[in-house]
Amino acid sequence: MLQSRKEDLIWPKMEASRCVGLAAPLQYLFLFIIFATFGSVQANTHHQKWEVAYEFRSPDCFQKLAITINGRTPGPTIVAGQGDTIVIDVKNRLLTENLAIHWHGIRQIGTPWYDGTEGVTQCPIVPGETFTYRFVVDRPGTYMYHAHYGMQRSAGLYGLIQVLPPAGMAELFTYDYDRSIILNDWWHKSTYEQAVGLSSKDFTFVGEPQSLLINGRGKFNCSNVRSGVCNETNPECLPYVLTVVSGKTYRLRIASITSLSALNFEIEGHNLTVVEADGYHVKPFVVKNLNIYSGETYSVLFKADQDPSHNYWFAVNVVSRKPNTPTGTAILNYYPNPPRRLPPTMPPYGPLWNDTMYQLNQSNAIRSHPDYIHPPPLTSDRMILLLNTQNFVDGYLKWALNNVTFTLPHTPYLIALKEKLFHGFDQRPPPETYDYKNYDIYAIQKNQNATASTSIYRLGFNSTVDVILQNANTKNPNNSETHPWHLHGHDFWVLGYGIGKFDPEIDPKRYNLVDPIKKNTVALHPYGWTALRFQADNPGVWAFHCHIESHFAMGMGVVFEEGVDKLGKLPTDIMGCGDSKYLKRP
Amino acid sequence: MLQSRKEDLIWPKMEASRCVGLAAPLQYLFLFIIFATFGSVQANTHHQKWEVAYEFRSPDCFQKLAITINGRTPGPTIVAGQGDTIVIDVKNRLLTENLAIHWHGIRQIGTPWYDGTEGVTQCPIVPGETFTYRFVVDRPGTYMYHAHYGMQRSAGLYGLIQVLPPAGMAELFTYDYDRSIILNDWWHKSTYEQAVGLSSKDFTFVGEPQSLLINGRGKFNCSNVRSGVCNETNPECLPYVLTVVSGKTYRLRIASITSLSALNFEIEGHNLTVVEADGYHVKPFVVKNLNIYSGETYSVLFKADQDPSHNYWFAVNVVSRKPNTPTGTAILNYYPNPPRRLPPTMPPYGPLWNDTMYQLNQSNAIRSHPDYIHPPPLTSDRMILLLNTQNFVDGYLKWALNNVTFTLPHTPYLIALKEKLFHGFDQRPPPETYDYKNYDIYAIQKNQNATASTSIYRLGFNSTVDVILQNANTKNPNNSETHPWHLHGHDFWVLGYGIGKFDPEIDPKRYNLVDPIKKNTVALHPYGWTALRFQADNPGVWAFHCHIESHFAMGMGVVFEEGVDKLGKLPTDIMGCGDSKYLKRP
Repeated sequence: MLQSRKEDLIWPKMEASRCVGLAAPLQYLFLFIIFATFGSVQANTHHQKWEVAYEFRSPDCFQKLAITINGRTPGPTIVAGQGDTIVIDVKNRLLTENLAIHWHGIRQIGTPWYDGTEGVTQCPIVPGETFTYRFVVDRPGTYMYHAHYGMQRSAGLYGLIQVLPPAGMAELFTYDYDRSIILNDWWHKSTYEQAVGLSSKDFTFVGEPQSLLINGRGKFNCSNVRSGVCNETNPECLPYVLTVVSGKTYRLRIASITSLSALNFEIEGHNLTVVEADGYHVKPFVVKNLNIYSGETYSVLFKADQDPSHNYWFAVNVVSRKPNTPTGTAILNYYPNPPRRLPPTMPPYGPLWNDTMYQLNQSNAIRSHPDYIHPPPLTSDRMILLLNTQNFVDGYLKWALNNVTFTLPHTPYLIALKEKLFHGFDQRPPPETYDYKNYDIYAIQKNQNATASTSIYRLGFNSTVDVILQNANTKNPNNSETHPWHLHGHDFWVLGYGIGKFDPEIDPKRYNLVDPIKKNTVALHPYGWTALRFQADNPGVWAFHCHIESHFAMGMGVVFEEGVDKLGKLPTDIMGCGDSKYLKRP
Repeated sequence: MLQSRKEDLIWPKMEASRCVGLAAPLQYLFLFIIFATFGSVQANTHHQKWEVAYEFRSPDCFQKLAITINGRTPGPTIVAGQGDTIVIDVKNRLLTENLAIHWHGIRQIGTPWYDGTEGVTQCPIVPGETFTYRFVVDRPGTYMYHAHYGMQRSAGLYGLIQVLPPAGMAELFTYDYDRSIILNDWWHKSTYEQAVGLSSKDFTFVGEPQSLLINGRGKFNCSNVRSGVCNETNPECLPYVLTVVSGKTYRLRIASITSLSALNFEIEGHNLTVVEADGYHVKPFVVKNLNIYSGETYSVLFKADQDPSHNYWFAVNVVSRKPNTPTGTAILNYYPNPPRRLPPTMPPYGPLWNDTMYQLNQSNAIRSHPDYIHPPPLTSDRMILLLNTQNFVDGYLKWALNNVTFTLPHTPYLIALKEKLFHGFDQRPPPETYDYKNYDIYAIQKNQNATASTSIYRLGFNSTVDVILQNANTKNPNNSETHPWHLHGHDFWVLGYGIGKFDPEIDPKRYNLVDPIKKNTVALHPYGWTALRFQADNPGVWAFHCHIESHFAMGMGVVFEEGVDKLGKLPTDIMGCGDSKYLKRP
């Protein structure tokens, strides 16, 4: 088993940063040899067996039930080469709860049924069952996986995917070591309590997170705990330590899987050069700190070029919401200082949380690397303009697009469309636009009532589609939130951002058609708009939604269909729910 | 809609006891008229629509997530006449959690697929789906329904079923009013936390319940609460009040759905005449208080014959485990005293918790009413002797029968057997007996390792089967627990109880073959044995298990099959999981 050996050998690299000393460089040399030896194997298959279960965990020293994969949260990092096939047998060992896992950033070309989006591409995996995801990772870069069912992501079911370029093909940017971190926000209340609060008429919001986690580790001040188990000496909540050697350059892959928070990431005293975004090469630019929104991944380069006599802070701070969560920290350890010795300073507190222009400017700075431009089509076939608002449906608080709040059907769309079970969802198309001439995005919506619908946007296969996300005031005065929108099955070009109301007559003329970055997740800034373009070239049914978990749960999403008629037979294992229970199968 | 009118009219009766004054008798008269008018309708259909959801509830003043039916826990009482058809559309509005509902005491003759036992008779109902249970209630008496999936029963999904004799046919015993109460134990930790604790290698027991609930109401001392919402003035935790009129006789239907606790029920100062057990007429006997085990139902008669100038306590106390739960109380209100005026006394504290002989003697006193004897077959075709022990499987604590701990298969047995998907479970028969000659039931088992198995007992159709439950020491010295065993799909004769080790040569000679009571749930007393007989005359697959929820979750159950070949086509709606996903359907 060449592949599994290769896999086993790559894995320790991900953990190397927890080791002290010079083991890492040696490992790397070893890996290099392995790659040189086996690199010519064109496409490997990486087969993993995952058991998903609830376990008591204390990622920030406070014990609660978390969803683990093989005992871990975050789950194992998937490391593979471009073109490799990933096969994951997911055994649901949750006791009464279903499951679905989304491979965030993987386009699932030819395998739309393994996108892992419950209600869209598959029935949920019921307890006791094993569901096998099988897909190809076709682009190098940094991706993620996470639960896509209810609010299970928030319970800890997430991890990283790292796709390496083919052996022998160098990255455009050079570095000595490759490290990864994944950021998260964390609550002490169960996702059940959170979800019930959100979906009650007597709407209850869980509030800001108790902690920010870096690679699954945070630190809560246990003296604030009135009941429950909280132990600041629990090794589970020891800070993450990244050990560096003075003078070396590090590629740091950063992913954010937060349920709510927009984050700002900083390494005390070290500039960051942004080189990758969502798997695409970025025209390098230097920042003191990086804004990262839920669903985004970046690679930054930094050089260990500071006084090596002490350690430094990694600091993660909440932005775009008034923070009520302590700075999340980890330790940048200069070898040979003791790895857990705290830096002599206070952790950076990040930029002003409500400096929207700071965030907008950084969003605008992310352009395609000149050597890696994927030019967008210069025109589009269709424009969908989506007004993002808070609304009420039958007295329940919801998020809506053009006053339609999204609800999942009982039969997943992919099955319903392919098997022609059309009564399973609303066949009327959802609105393409809103009354942009008269709508005041700075005011509270006059008629806050929305309708709930299972309707979807059906796109012409291979057509070019523009989506304009238009932000607005929420139901509270002088409030507009940041929404990171994530598209399944595609990467889109980010044609532009603006503050204020998008004008379909004027603003398209300002689109960046020269070097727009491609991404799968993009921020919609407060009171702003974001313009995207993508090609509907991937047969399947694809969710496009705000990546804030509670917002999607409250209806902030749409679904696109394209070319489902081109798909072959659906795998039976995605079925079993809704009308698919009654399907006749060969 | 004759039926729904009838139903609507019966319903208020169940709530009448919350009213003050003489409304109840008038209601009864009204009901009598209704019955007299429509009673000749042989079999009605009662159609209800239930929505099952998590909601925040404070049944004992402490707020936690509870599973409700149409907003209520306990759920609505089902009231029907003998021979009526019950149709319940159960919509699963839990967010990520499946569901199955068992109709406890209803034999499901001809409808084994609607027994509601997840993994045995059906796939779980996934969120968003509506599953329709449809069955006939063929015997008058007091029954229950409750979740039969994971530990959802403990989360509040339960209620009463009352089957009335055909109109015009009087009960054997006479009474003025018919009232019902259902008893439960209640924890503040979520069932998730409980279930994960039980199923972890690092076994964690949630401990004794915080409260005992009478008709869903208890009272927790909020001053003991260190965090969370607890409010002793919350009307949700006002005590249940039963208003009586001096001199009248009341039939009180008592059901226990506890997850753990054996209970003792007492009405301060009032003797109870036991007249019904699990739907069968009991040779009346008088007790000061009644032991009731989880899964049992009784009717008792009591006369409001005490000083009517004040109110009295209903008291529920834990027996057979060292109690660490306050007495559960409700108020017996003598009209016209203020209904919520507390009695001037302390609530009764019940019998000694560990007086096993007291419990055994009461069990032995429950005999069939001479006018209603269903004579048992005098011999049986098969004897299955089940040793009840605590064991370990791969380091996990389990309960086992003859050293086999039960695990559910992924494809429900009924589907697997009927559709011949035999690889879905272990085809080897489980052991019929244990080494009773040499086993010391008073000692900790020497080899505590057990095996986990999905194997089942396949019974000859129409054969007569004896099951002897043999209790023993647990893994702790000098400890043996009470186990209430419940059989699905049948009622059994209780042939006898004993303390010590059952001797197959001698003890059968002591069987009561004259007037044994029929039941569906029976206690196995500490270090004792209980002998049952039933006829395997109901085609289907039937669970037989300890009704302590955590014990069943830890493997304390077996499954019987009989006559599956005689069944017609299975309904498709029970399918969708395991191998049934791949079935070809017409």
